[in-house]
Amino acid sequence: MSDASGHAERAENEALGVIDRSATDASLRTIAMPADTNPNGDIFGGWILSQMDLAGGTHAFHEAGGRVATVAVTGMKFHKPVVVGDEVSCYCSTERVGRTSIQVRVETWVRRRHGAAEEQVTEGRFTFVAIDDGGRPRPVDEPVPHSGTHDSGTRTA
Amino acid sequence: MSDASGHAERAENEALGVIDRSATDASLRTIAMPADTNPNGDIFGGWILSQMDLAGGTHAFHEAGGRVATVAVTGMKFHKPVVVGDEVSCYCSTERVGRTSIQVRVETWVRRRHGAAEEQVTEGRFTFVAIDDGGRPRPVDEPVPHSGTHDSGTRTA
Amino acid sequence: MSDASGHAERAENEALGVIDRSATDASLRTIAMPADTNPNGDIFGGWILSQMDLAGGTHAFHEAGGRVATVAVTGMKFHKPVVVGDEVSCYCSTERVGRTSIQVRVETWVRRRHGAAEEQVTEGRFTFVAIDDGGRPRPVDEPVPHSGTHDSGTRTA
Amino acid sequence: MSDASGHAERAENEALGVIDRSATDASLRTIAMPADTNPNGDIFGGWILSQMDLAGGTHAFHEAGGRVATVAVTGMKFHKPVVVGDEVSCYCSTERVGRTSIQVRVETWVRRRHGAAEEQVTEGRFTFVAIDDGGRPRPVDEPVPHSGTHDSGTRTA
Amino acid sequence: MSDASGHAERAENEALGVIDRSATDASLRTIAMPADTNPNGDIFGGWILSQMDLAGGTHAFHEAGGRVATVAVTGMKFHKPVVVGDEVSCYCSTERVGRTSIQVRVETWVRRRHGAAEEQVTEGRFTFVAIDDGGRPRPVDEPVPHSGTHDSGTRTA
Amino acid sequence: MSDASGHAERAENEALGVIDRSATDASLRTIAMPADTNPNGDIFGGWILSQMDLAGGTHAFHEAGGRVATVAVTGMKFHKPVVVGDEVSCYCSTERVGRTSIQVRVETWVRRRHGAAEEQVTEGRFTFVAIDDGGRPRPVDEPVPHSGTHDSGTRTA
Repeated sequence: MSDASGHAERAENEALGVIDRSATDASLRTIAMPADTNPNGDIFGGWILSQMDLAGGTHAFHEAGGRVATVAVTGMKFHKPVVVGDEVSCYCSTERVGRTSIQVRVETWVRRRHGAAEEQVTEGRFTFVAIDDGGRPRPVDEPVPHSGTHDSGTRTA
Repeated sequence: MSDASGHAERAENEALGVIDRSATDASLRTIAMPADTNPNGDIFGGWILSQMDLAGGTHAFHEAGGRVATVAVTGMKFHKPVVVGDEVSCYCSTERVGRTSIQVRVETWVRRRHGAAEEQVTEGRFTFVAIDDGGRPRPVDEPVPHSGTHDSGTRTA
Repeated sequence: MSDASGHAERAENEALGVIDRSATDASLRTIAMPADTNPNGDIFGGWILSQMDLAGGTHAFHEAGGRVATVAVTGMKFHKPVVVGDEVSCYCSTERVGRTSIQVRVETWVRRRHGAAEEQVTEGRFTFVAIDDGGRPRPVDEPVPHSGTHDSGTRTA
Repeated sequence: MSDASGHAERAENEALGVIDRSATDASLRTIAMPADTNPNGDIFGGWILSQMDLAGGTHAFHEAGGRVATVAVTGMKFHKPVVVGDEVSCYCSTERVGRTSIQVRVETWVRRRHGAAEEQVTEGRFTFVAIDDGGRPRPVDEPVPHSGTHDSGTRTA
Repeated sequence: MSDASGHAERAENEALGVIDRSATDASLRTIAMPADTNPNGDIFGGWILSQMDLAGGTHAFHEAGGRVATVAVTGMKFHKPVVVGDEVSCYCSTERVGRTSIQVRVETWVRRRHGAAEEQVTEGRFTFVAIDDGGRPRPVDEPVPHSGTHDSGTRTA
Repeated sequence: MSDASGHAERAENEALGVIDRSATDASLRTIAMPADTNPNGDIFGGWILSQMDLAGGTHAFHEAGGRVATVAVTGMKFHKPVVVGDEVSCYCSTERVGRTSIQVRVETWVRRRHGAAEEQVTEGRFTFVAIDDGGRPRPVDEPVPHSGTHDSGTRTA
């Protein structure tokens, strides 16, 4: 919430970020549009949560080999505001795989309209449960080996 | 609420629910529409998070006497799915007021299309910071006394 | 409601309002967002009509014990504009139940961003017909006793 | 229109229709999309009201020589359902011009996906007030002569 | 892209337009709303492309006697910006009918809020393929005779 | 439009793609949702065009050092349908930089819900003009050197 900028902020960003973005594709990337603003003219926090849930859910879908449902969110923090025109990217990495559940770390980074570098704006942990067609929990399908650098956003060579 | 069909479920609901809904108006109430579904046909988790953030933010706006920004979400749990046609209500109560921040408990309850009683589907804690026109933190305006039963949504008799 | 700033306005509001809001929950409550504005920057009248139709239809669905379709709107008046950031609530009460149709009075009230009291902004009568799965009119299911104070939005104490 | 399949239905349509559509352009024409459905899978009545309000408001804007606000709706009837894929057209004609207000008749007609002729699905009267930049009523600007056949949808030769 | 206005522009418009709009109804007509803007505050180019694709696809649907899919766009030009409040109309005419495909010329014209005449803002050629229920190409159904002045949007006198 | 699958299609995909995706980040990546479908239940072509325009415009914005407007689209082809649940990515590369304009190749690739590899679904060339605050063409700002592998989606090291 502080209005610091420049080097201090850059260092802070790199301190915050846990996902190695140089080795990870964005799970989601879009532009914050005027239709996504709240009555203050900022981008609506709920819209950002939606993007993160969608990114994490897609990541988990591929890890789980099928349909998943969001069951929990923890440690969700908003570090800086998102404004109209920002390029908004969500990066995901799998943190834990249980018998029927998957915990995904999701970080949101933005590139401002006149900025070159991305800045981290949010982070959170989303937990998903693998479900069958009837909506009942099912074992996670032979999860493919994974790490912070082999997430669901990776394109095949 | 007196005609709840499943006593067991009711007990479970009441165990979950912390907000006294008989003394609290919904901060937000809407109908889950087909446009809000995810690729599985269920209501998109991100849409539910959006509604909760909007409800909590409105609640905090009135507590703080002006503009607020979401800074954190904790203890967010999804207990049951929301489906198309559900009447979705978010109930809020203030949990803690700091110098510049306000923590709001938000519960989502739904009334199914053919159900009489509301069922709790989510809960979470949203923290907001009061901000001035420049987006900098400001002291919460002489907060009015509050409790779980006197939230911002309450109309006086 | 007790701290209404304009007594004259309050009197006017109460003259308009027919539904006893102290005994009736909102059927719908949401925040007017920038995405809902018309080219003038005001909230689009059609958006307000949509909310009222949705509120009345949900109310009628529960009265009729199932699916309904809007067949008529009468006496629809817009008293004051709705602006971005307003908390918009629709209150409903059943006015008449026919063999296959239900007439619902819908009032829209707003709480302005810096206002404490709600102000009435619209009123209208929406008529719905109970329909079966093929879309044909069907008798209203043993309608539960109703009055202005026991509408479908009411939670029992 | 000459290949209408049901003469009886056609007669009914023409009995309903008051606006001479052969001499009037549609004020609005769009396709009903899946995102516009209600929980029953039909097109949401509120969406249709939105289109009619937008059509009537555009018509009135041009009659009034500037900004207008919706103040009333009367005689609004829904004759038939609108379904996904329908081509939806709103036709308008000015019915009365007062000192500061304009009453517009709005009819909605649809062309079904596999139908050749348009069928009337709704009708209603929308009243608009001409307003100035402060939102206060203003005299209607020297209204151009009008009739059912010279509505705002007319393109210049 | 030049900011010329007046007579020169008028002549230019009439030079650009190929479809005889005096003999052709709009396939689509709507109002550009604030929710359709890009971060610059102009109407988003992608929104205009969407309207043109929807207009051309509806036109082709009726020519082809059923479902079609967009396969190509050529010669798409944006001559002038579209702004909030513009009445946006898409006019279509069939240019070529192949065994399974239909090429449609689509022109977008706008009427500005305080303008009387429409101005052409875009043009393009959209090619559609007629498809069966499985999404496979099918012969175009005995196409009805057509020309620039008898497109699918035309109502008979 | 053929229904080929398997190896032949794979080869075709790799033949189609011109952008080196292994060295290029997606400019845009999102999930195709039910709200984006057309009346056939497929993803609406106009929605895909919107995403491509947004992706190309963001790419051009960064190349041009500021605001741009879409002026032309050529060689736009839809190779395969996009369906609900697909992960949709747009890849961009600059093809030509003129004094005031930039031509961007945009390719759309999807990863199906149960697929591992991405398949190319569209391609097209979007031309943008750099504009100043008044909307008039301006010289492209000292364009940074670029190639297929240094597009606007590249994150700084």
